[in-house]
Amino acid sequence: MSVNTIQGYEPLTSETAIALARRLGLFEKSSLLDCQEIGDGNLNYVFHITDVHRKKGIIIKQALPYAKVVGESWPLTLKRAVIEANALQIFGSFAPDFVPKVYYSDERLAVTVMEDLSHLTIARTGLIGGKNYPLLSKHVGEYLAKTLYHTSDYGLGHGKKKEWAKNFTNPELCKITEDLVFTDPFFDSQTNDFEEDLTETVRELWNDGAVQLEAAKLKKSFITEQEALLHGDLHTGSIFASRTVTKVIDPEFAFYGPIGFDIGQYIANLAFQAIARDPENREVIYTHIQQVWETFQEQYTILWMEDNKDTFAGTDGYLDFVLKKSFQDALGFAGCELIRRSIGLSHVKDLDGIEDNGRRITAKKNAIELGKKLIKERILLTTIEDAIQLVKSRL
Amino acid sequence: MSVNTIQGYEPLTSETAIALARRLGLFEKSSLLDCQEIGDGNLNYVFHITDVHRKKGIIIKQALPYAKVVGESWPLTLKRAVIEANALQIFGSFAPDFVPKVYYSDERLAVTVMEDLSHLTIARTGLIGGKNYPLLSKHVGEYLAKTLYHTSDYGLGHGKKKEWAKNFTNPELCKITEDLVFTDPFFDSQTNDFEEDLTETVRELWNDGAVQLEAAKLKKSFITEQEALLHGDLHTGSIFASRTVTKVIDPEFAFYGPIGFDIGQYIANLAFQAIARDPENREVIYTHIQQVWETFQEQYTILWMEDNKDTFAGTDGYLDFVLKKSFQDALGFAGCELIRRSIGLSHVKDLDGIEDNGRRITAKKNAIELGKKLIKERILLTTIEDAIQLVKSRL
Repeated sequence: MSVNTIQGYEPLTSETAIALARRLGLFEKSSLLDCQEIGDGNLNYVFHITDVHRKKGIIIKQALPYAKVVGESWPLTLKRAVIEANALQIFGSFAPDFVPKVYYSDERLAVTVMEDLSHLTIARTGLIGGKNYPLLSKHVGEYLAKTLYHTSDYGLGHGKKKEWAKNFTNPELCKITEDLVFTDPFFDSQTNDFEEDLTETVRELWNDGAVQLEAAKLKKSFITEQEALLHGDLHTGSIFASRTVTKVIDPEFAFYGPIGFDIGQYIANLAFQAIARDPENREVIYTHIQQVWETFQEQYTILWMEDNKDTFAGTDGYLDFVLKKSFQDALGFAGCELIRRSIGLSHVKDLDGIEDNGRRITAKKNAIELGKKLIKERILLTTIEDAIQLVKSRL
Repeated sequence: MSVNTIQGYEPLTSETAIALARRLGLFEKSSLLDCQEIGDGNLNYVFHITDVHRKKGIIIKQALPYAKVVGESWPLTLKRAVIEANALQIFGSFAPDFVPKVYYSDERLAVTVMEDLSHLTIARTGLIGGKNYPLLSKHVGEYLAKTLYHTSDYGLGHGKKKEWAKNFTNPELCKITEDLVFTDPFFDSQTNDFEEDLTETVRELWNDGAVQLEAAKLKKSFITEQEALLHGDLHTGSIFASRTVTKVIDPEFAFYGPIGFDIGQYIANLAFQAIARDPENREVIYTHIQQVWETFQEQYTILWMEDNKDTFAGTDGYLDFVLKKSFQDALGFAGCELIRRSIGLSHVKDLDGIEDNGRRITAKKNAIELGKKLIKERILLTTIEDAIQLVKSRL
C-alpha cells in the first residue's frame, strides 16, 4: 500500500462485498446471496453478487492501487474509481440505453456499485467467436454522438464545460495513453512487446519520419484539445453486447479530449477483426465500420441542429468542418491504436489469439501497415467509404 | 455587493491600503507614506504608495466585484485577483526581466502587492504620443517565448501542465473574450458599439460567410486548445515600457489556451498604430511586428532544443509545425482583435483618439478590412514578411 491509497481504503473480500450490498438495501433482507470475483484482476476487483433464488444481481467494482499487467510495481491512482463513477453517471444521463446504471459509489473505498450485465458478452470475445451483433455499431455510433455532443461546448455551454473539464482532469490515466499509445510504439522503448519476426517491420516504422511527425501531431491533439468528455478507452473489450443490447463500460480513462479519439479506438478495434478474419467473413466488419461513423454523423448533426449553445452553430460550413476534423482525427487515432496493439505493451486477443505463427505475423504486419497508412493519409480521406477502401487495400 | 464577493472582502481606502503596506513591513517604520489611487477604475483599484522622502514605492492592486465599463451591473469574479497573482508569479519565474515582482497576495481581499512601475509608461500611451521603444518588441518576443514554452507540455511536462491548466480554469474572464472578441462583433449583437459611418462596412462583415466560418474555427481553438498558460489580454495597454525596460502586467485573463492568442493580440495592437499613423511613421511599427515574431521564434526554438519533455522533440518537422500553427493562429487572432476593437464593446485609444472624423472612420475601415484579410488568408501566409506585406496592402 503506497501513496496511491486513500485513507480508509481496503480491498473488499466476497464477505465485505456482500455486506456492502446488504447495507445499501439492494437485495431483500431474506435473500440468499452468492458472490464471485469475476474481474480479470489487472486493475480492479469485480464482484458479481446474485440473489440465488431470484437470479437478480449487481456488480461491485473496486479499483486496485496498482496495475498487475506489469506486476504490482506499477502503482495506479484510486481516484480513477471516482472518475469512472462520475463519467458513468454523465454518460448515462445522455445515453441511458447504452450505459450501465450506477446505484452507489464510494470514493474512500474506490468502489462503484452498478447494474449487472452478466447476461451480455464482451463484444471483443463475441466477435472473435464469430458472433454478430447487428445493432452494435449503430448503438455505439449513437452513444458516441450523444456523449460527445452533450459534453461539448456546443451541447453543454462554455461555463459548465470548463467546470467538467477541470473535474475530469485525469493525469495518471492519460499518461498511460500518452506513453503506450502515442509515444513508446514509435520509438525503441522498453515497454514495447513484439515477436522477433516483426523486427524488420518495426524498424521500418521507427525510421519512418513521416509517420513519426504525424504521430507527434496526433499526440499533441490528444494532450491539448478539450473538445468533449471522452470515454478514453473505447475498444471492443469495453463494450458488453447481445443481438439487441449494447452497454459501454469502464470509462476510468475519461477526460476532456478530441472526440475523434473514442471514435478512432472503436474503429481500430473493429479493424483488428477484419484483419484477423478470413476474407469471406470481413464484409460484416466493414459494415460495422460504416455504421458507427454514419450513425455518429447523423445523430451528431441532429443534436447540433436541435440545441446548440454556440452563436456560430448556423454558420455555413462549421458543422462540416467539425465533422471532417473528427473523422480525420479518428482515422489517425485508429492508426495509432492499430500499431500499439501490435507492438506495444498491451495487445488484443483478436491478433494474439491467432495460433498459426505465419498467419499471426502477417496479421500484425497488416495492422502495422494499415496503421501507418491511416496516420499518414488521414487528411486525404473524406468519406467513410474511402477509409474502408484503405482498410481493404491493406488486407 | 453580490454573490461575487468573498467572505470578509471589503474595498480598500487610502488609509487601509497604507495600513496594509505597513503591516507587510514594506517600508521603514519611520517613513512618511503617501497614497494615490491611480487605476482607471473600471475593474480594479490601484493604490500607489510611496515613501515621500525616499521616493521608493509599491503598488497595491485590488479587484472590484464589478466591471464599471458598462455600469456597476456587470458583476465580475474576485477570483481573478488570485489568477493574476499566481500568473504573475509563474511568468516572473520564467521571464523575471519582463514581469513585475509580487511581494504579497491576499485571496480574501482580492489584493496583489507588487513592484512599483510608475517610472515607466504604458506602451500604448507612449506609442500614441510618438515615442519609440527600441527594445519593446524584442522584449515582448522573449517574454512570449519563455512564458509560452515553459508552461507547455514541452517545457513543463504533461502531469504538471495538467495540474496548472486545472488551477487556471478561468471561466468568467474567458467568457468575456469568447463573447467580445470571438462572437459579438461577427453578429448584430447588443454589445457592439460603432459609428454610424461604419454601418455599411459592418453589414458587409456580418454577411461575409467566409469570415464567419474562420472566426468560428478561431473561437473553437480558443475554447478547446490548452497549449500553454496565456496572459490572455496582451495588448499594448498591458505593457509598461521605457527605452530600456519592458514589463508585462495585468494577467487576470490568464488561462491555458492556444499560444497564438497572446502573440496575435500584441501584433494587432501594433497594427492599430500602423493604421493610425501617417505613412512616414509606420515603418518603425512594421519593424516591431517583425521583431516580436522573429524574437519569439528564435527564443522558442532555443528552448525547444535545450530542454524538451516530449520524446517527439527531435522529430523532423515537428517544431516547424508547432511554429507555423502558432504563426497562423496568431494572424487569425490578430484579425479578430482588429475587428472587435473597431466595432465591439471595448475600443482602443489609437483609433478612437483620432479627432478628425473622416480619418478616424477610414482608419477603422482599414482595421476591419485588414482583420477580415488576416482571418481569411492566415493559412496562406508563412512568413512574417508576408504578413507585413498584407498589413501594408490594406493601408
